[in-house]
Amino acid sequence: MDKPTRRIGVLTGGGDCPGLNAVIRAVTKDAIHHGMDVLGIEDGFLGLIEDRIRPLEERDVSNILTTGGTILGSSNKANPANMAVGRDTNGNVVHKDLTEACLITLESHGIDTLVVIGGDGTMTCAAPFVERGIRAVGVPKTIDNDLWGTDMTFGHMTAVEIATEALDRVHTTAASHHRAMVVEVMGRNAGWIALSAGVASGSDVILLPEMPFDIDAVCEHVAQRSTKGKRFTIVCCSEGAYPKGGAQIVERTDPTSPDPIRLGGIAKWVSGQIEDMTGVESRHVVLGHVQRGGTPCAFDRMLATLFGDAAMELILQQKYSRLVAWQGGRITDVPMLEAADKQRLVPPDEPLIAAARSVSTCFGD
Amino acid sequence: MDKPTRRIGVLTGGGDCPGLNAVIRAVTKDAIHHGMDVLGIEDGFLGLIEDRIRPLEERDVSNILTTGGTILGSSNKANPANMAVGRDTNGNVVHKDLTEACLITLESHGIDTLVVIGGDGTMTCAAPFVERGIRAVGVPKTIDNDLWGTDMTFGHMTAVEIATEALDRVHTTAASHHRAMVVEVMGRNAGWIALSAGVASGSDVILLPEMPFDIDAVCEHVAQRSTKGKRFTIVCCSEGAYPKGGAQIVERTDPTSPDPIRLGGIAKWVSGQIEDMTGVESRHVVLGHVQRGGTPCAFDRMLATLFGDAAMELILQQKYSRLVAWQGGRITDVPMLEAADKQRLVPPDEPLIAAARSVSTCFGD
Amino acid sequence: MDKPTRRIGVLTGGGDCPGLNAVIRAVTKDAIHHGMDVLGIEDGFLGLIEDRIRPLEERDVSNILTTGGTILGSSNKANPANMAVGRDTNGNVVHKDLTEACLITLESHGIDTLVVIGGDGTMTCAAPFVERGIRAVGVPKTIDNDLWGTDMTFGHMTAVEIATEALDRVHTTAASHHRAMVVEVMGRNAGWIALSAGVASGSDVILLPEMPFDIDAVCEHVAQRSTKGKRFTIVCCSEGAYPKGGAQIVERTDPTSPDPIRLGGIAKWVSGQIEDMTGVESRHVVLGHVQRGGTPCAFDRMLATLFGDAAMELILQQKYSRLVAWQGGRITDVPMLEAADKQRLVPPDEPLIAAARSVSTCFGD
Amino acid sequence: MDKPTRRIGVLTGGGDCPGLNAVIRAVTKDAIHHGMDVLGIEDGFLGLIEDRIRPLEERDVSNILTTGGTILGSSNKANPANMAVGRDTNGNVVHKDLTEACLITLESHGIDTLVVIGGDGTMTCAAPFVERGIRAVGVPKTIDNDLWGTDMTFGHMTAVEIATEALDRVHTTAASHHRAMVVEVMGRNAGWIALSAGVASGSDVILLPEMPFDIDAVCEHVAQRSTKGKRFTIVCCSEGAYPKGGAQIVERTDPTSPDPIRLGGIAKWVSGQIEDMTGVESRHVVLGHVQRGGTPCAFDRMLATLFGDAAMELILQQKYSRLVAWQGGRITDVPMLEAADKQRLVPPDEPLIAAARSVSTCFGD
Repeated sequence: MDKPTRRIGVLTGGGDCPGLNAVIRAVTKDAIHHGMDVLGIEDGFLGLIEDRIRPLEERDVSNILTTGGTILGSSNKANPANMAVGRDTNGNVVHKDLTEACLITLESHGIDTLVVIGGDGTMTCAAPFVERGIRAVGVPKTIDNDLWGTDMTFGHMTAVEIATEALDRVHTTAASHHRAMVVEVMGRNAGWIALSAGVASGSDVILLPEMPFDIDAVCEHVAQRSTKGKRFTIVCCSEGAYPKGGAQIVERTDPTSPDPIRLGGIAKWVSGQIEDMTGVESRHVVLGHVQRGGTPCAFDRMLATLFGDAAMELILQQKYSRLVAWQGGRITDVPMLEAADKQRLVPPDEPLIAAARSVSTCFGD
Repeated sequence: MDKPTRRIGVLTGGGDCPGLNAVIRAVTKDAIHHGMDVLGIEDGFLGLIEDRIRPLEERDVSNILTTGGTILGSSNKANPANMAVGRDTNGNVVHKDLTEACLITLESHGIDTLVVIGGDGTMTCAAPFVERGIRAVGVPKTIDNDLWGTDMTFGHMTAVEIATEALDRVHTTAASHHRAMVVEVMGRNAGWIALSAGVASGSDVILLPEMPFDIDAVCEHVAQRSTKGKRFTIVCCSEGAYPKGGAQIVERTDPTSPDPIRLGGIAKWVSGQIEDMTGVESRHVVLGHVQRGGTPCAFDRMLATLFGDAAMELILQQKYSRLVAWQGGRITDVPMLEAADKQRLVPPDEPLIAAARSVSTCFGD
Repeated sequence: MDKPTRRIGVLTGGGDCPGLNAVIRAVTKDAIHHGMDVLGIEDGFLGLIEDRIRPLEERDVSNILTTGGTILGSSNKANPANMAVGRDTNGNVVHKDLTEACLITLESHGIDTLVVIGGDGTMTCAAPFVERGIRAVGVPKTIDNDLWGTDMTFGHMTAVEIATEALDRVHTTAASHHRAMVVEVMGRNAGWIALSAGVASGSDVILLPEMPFDIDAVCEHVAQRSTKGKRFTIVCCSEGAYPKGGAQIVERTDPTSPDPIRLGGIAKWVSGQIEDMTGVESRHVVLGHVQRGGTPCAFDRMLATLFGDAAMELILQQKYSRLVAWQGGRITDVPMLEAADKQRLVPPDEPLIAAARSVSTCFGD
Repeated sequence: MDKPTRRIGVLTGGGDCPGLNAVIRAVTKDAIHHGMDVLGIEDGFLGLIEDRIRPLEERDVSNILTTGGTILGSSNKANPANMAVGRDTNGNVVHKDLTEACLITLESHGIDTLVVIGGDGTMTCAAPFVERGIRAVGVPKTIDNDLWGTDMTFGHMTAVEIATEALDRVHTTAASHHRAMVVEVMGRNAGWIALSAGVASGSDVILLPEMPFDIDAVCEHVAQRSTKGKRFTIVCCSEGAYPKGGAQIVERTDPTSPDPIRLGGIAKWVSGQIEDMTGVESRHVVLGHVQRGGTPCAFDRMLATLFGDAAMELILQQKYSRLVAWQGGRITDVPMLEAADKQRLVPPDEPLIAAARSVSTCFGD
């Protein structure tokens, strides 16, 4: 059996997500409690490349449970395997593999085990290290809740709560002013936020990336509501939702895209179509980054603490290359590198969809 | 096979719980969608006894998803089986069984199936009806999350969020003023709210009814924190927590109780003990009813909608005498009357307890 | 002296604003208490034109204090003086004056006094009625707090609280990910929301319509923060802010505008400029309609209740053609029609600007 | 003219209040900006007595705008003029004046001007220093908003918002369960929180220390509501409210008090009386410390920043012995020591009282 872990390195990668600090806190407190040293790696894998490492003591993680963001910093794009730009002997631009630099950093600090907190991109970045024998455990992180292998990730519920509160707010305006209000929430490939917040807010229409919608069906639903005396409609729409026959939005704000929908985002397009086709005045809101910052809700603080504790448990049991997961209402773990390739989309038989249909929600299909 | 359901009667029983209206809304919309009539029974079983029944149309359940309380009203104590006080032929006071009155009401309105939304008390009230062949399905309701057969009930997470926010608020005061702050949350027999809110808020001490505590151990923890430079302590305590050797509090506010703890509640007693034994200034807060009213959080609105939909699904499948439940991350159902007798307490191996210990939380044991 | 008021007509005009229902409730309860009848006019002046009037009883205004929107409905564009499109005898399109229709409605319902709740546009609509001798009092309403004659209007503080919460949330992301975050809040001509929320959130840069900004100065501020080790910047920007030499944005989303800033809004433009000029990664969020819907904060419920009570006080004193106002910390009133023409902009010597500068806030000047 | 200030000492005294950190931040940033040194005095006057002083740099006040409590710590009882217990030559217990110790601390650190942030008690503590020629300016602090000389203090509105949210929550329970709910909010001598939160929440009864109430009148109001079909009542009550003929509560939780009301607090007593006299089921909640901790609302962050800036302005103008104040909607200042003796109570002609009466609120008079 291997020697037990003595010095843990912790890093956070990818986009912001409420609960990152709660994981860092749980890992650090637990590790110190077991007599290990904890080193914080700054700005994800960038800190490994640039040797920016600092010790984490208990006082460093005091009072961070409730704060958003990550005290370690993060970087979205730092994949050591394909990082620095250089030229080969023929003068062509090439991408250099900086994995070696990271390994030197790890060795020089005596880090014998990595705790990698991130989503599929971060797990992809971690793969070369795992493959070269670096001991690592992963903690899943995604606002969108679309990571393979786990039913739930911290941060997601906070995003749902924020989106629901926003939908509640526009609801009263829609009702008073007899409007359609289209609210775009996060979710490029998976519609979990839109589905959950849509059900929680009683949205009349929910549009998901997994279910290309028929804009005529959406407009007909808006019009039918009018005939029943309901002179307003709330549409909750994933940023990655798209009409049948249309192309999914690759880059929502890419100005060079010829697709008019892409110019202003799907919410703006849906809002315009509703106004044109039904005559109902319509407005749109794009919630954006407010969904992924700030203090986590209680649920996410609990889940993040459980995840941090579970990561330490894997380390204590010397079960490496595993990703902490939540399945069937309990903590478990899955192979760390499998999460790098797959996605958990909303399945057609998801009970929330059936429940939403039961209360007359339209999915545009 | 029985005739399918044509007229549903819905009632809500027991204490208040965020999400009751979301269940009523889901059941009503779904039932109307399937061509059934829905009748609302006012104030729980009292409405059956007193024949206070009103039809529920879609407009009655419009805009109630986000509101706390129950549009049908509730009553805590109306058990038809043991309800009215009278005298027998010998002049002794007796309790009359008013089940018959309820059956007449049901028949006169043509109600062929009951949807009973409530906790163990309400399910107990429902038992005589089920036993006499009235078709019924149950939807579990409890702030405390201690209902047998289901891992989670709506309303509980809202209570946890509210308690966590309160704990966050007193945290800054405790730290600034170098105090112990003892916050008493709901939970007479089960400590789920205290455990969850305690972990979510990073409370230093968590006291649960399931784990009688040693007040010396609690005070020692407070004192030890001081020696480490942490001049404050947050204690999150269930209303039903009690010291080892002490008696569990049956009725927290009973003024005739000889037990001094009972007079002011456990939080006040713990706070006083800390001040006396450690010299650390201490204050207590009893959150009380703010935990069970008001708008449900998004999580509870989703769960309540799923539960309402699942109750209707049971009716459509003619699966009566079942209680909707959430187990292993999915909707299922359990025998309705079994929930009347049992309780789901925090087990000693609950992962949240282990996670809390990992971040140095003291349980007073 | 005129006969006292017997039947009050109440209408709400213009955009949504938290607190409208609180005013309607206060006016209705107070009027009924004084033995008057209250009639609710639906959808602003449109309800007068189309004779959509309904009595308001106490039960109609029960439970509306906390709800956003307006139970009477509103319409943004219904100016009776210039409303219906027709053709003159030469076949040219003309706008007809429908004031007469409104007067008939008022007379047929016996409404002897109007309570007009709205902003400058609504007061403009009310002018022809006042000029023809209809007795009216006004209650000022504007999210932007730019109405002439009053220091404060209900709804504004709710918008500030919502914007501040959003700025708090993006703050943690900016800090973790070393970004500039540009948050666009409401305010086309007046920057009160941006100034207040900017100060309340500790924004590093605040951009107001009243102070055209130098984008170079903004970018230099961002860059200077980096040299001081602060690798992030929060920009709070009014939708009507614009760069020096640029034109103020008349219609933010007009797609035919040749001005590139107008295409995506000022926040997007500022965000892009920061990224281009400083190399600091930058993101933008447009808060939009979430700022003007939903439950009012306690401050606004108080202010709206005071305003409704003050409107009734004017009626009882037979002081017509007056607009309720808040000046120097107390309720007063100003001539109703003067509010139609003027605006209250942020003055250069506003103390909040000086206070913001004291904590190093940059206004781009 | 005196030499200008070079080294500022800042202290916070008295109970917790959201916004203290915002004042510390504004003073520190502003002073550093003007080339001054800033020293933080720990735990109020205790830090002067015990020589616990630390320099405040910009990084120390970064990120504290949104946090509750005070980074400097506070102490409630440390009045240097009457502090240490000793014995005189006859052996009698005497209180020693430790003002001299404080003066030595000030001199040894070269502090030439004090910024004293606190309420009337703290200003009383500051008096001997001012009288001996120490240059000082005061910033008013009180949750209760009862400080003489200023219309508004930071922290108060946060308390009102928290109390209002709690009242909103119990409202739905009261309505569903046909109960009276009595919510006790802070305010021993002044009823500003109860009045404001009572109006903001639409409470049916508001009880203030300034207006001793007739319990019969309160119960009659509850009973009358029942006859009008309103089967519930919300009572918002100051902790210092008391019945006519009764004695005001000096120490709410003093267990030796013979007055039964004092044992459990006024809310419990009122709740019991309602239940006994009307038969309406009744519950009470004592909000307590959750009202004075946690993140300040946007309004209070603005006001605290304005106050901190105004304190620095006084220092720059060498206007010492003044207390920053808010009067008639603008910043001003009053003599610092006058605030030590007086209180600002709710006057009988307060417009909020009249507005509350207009919407049928009962004050028990």
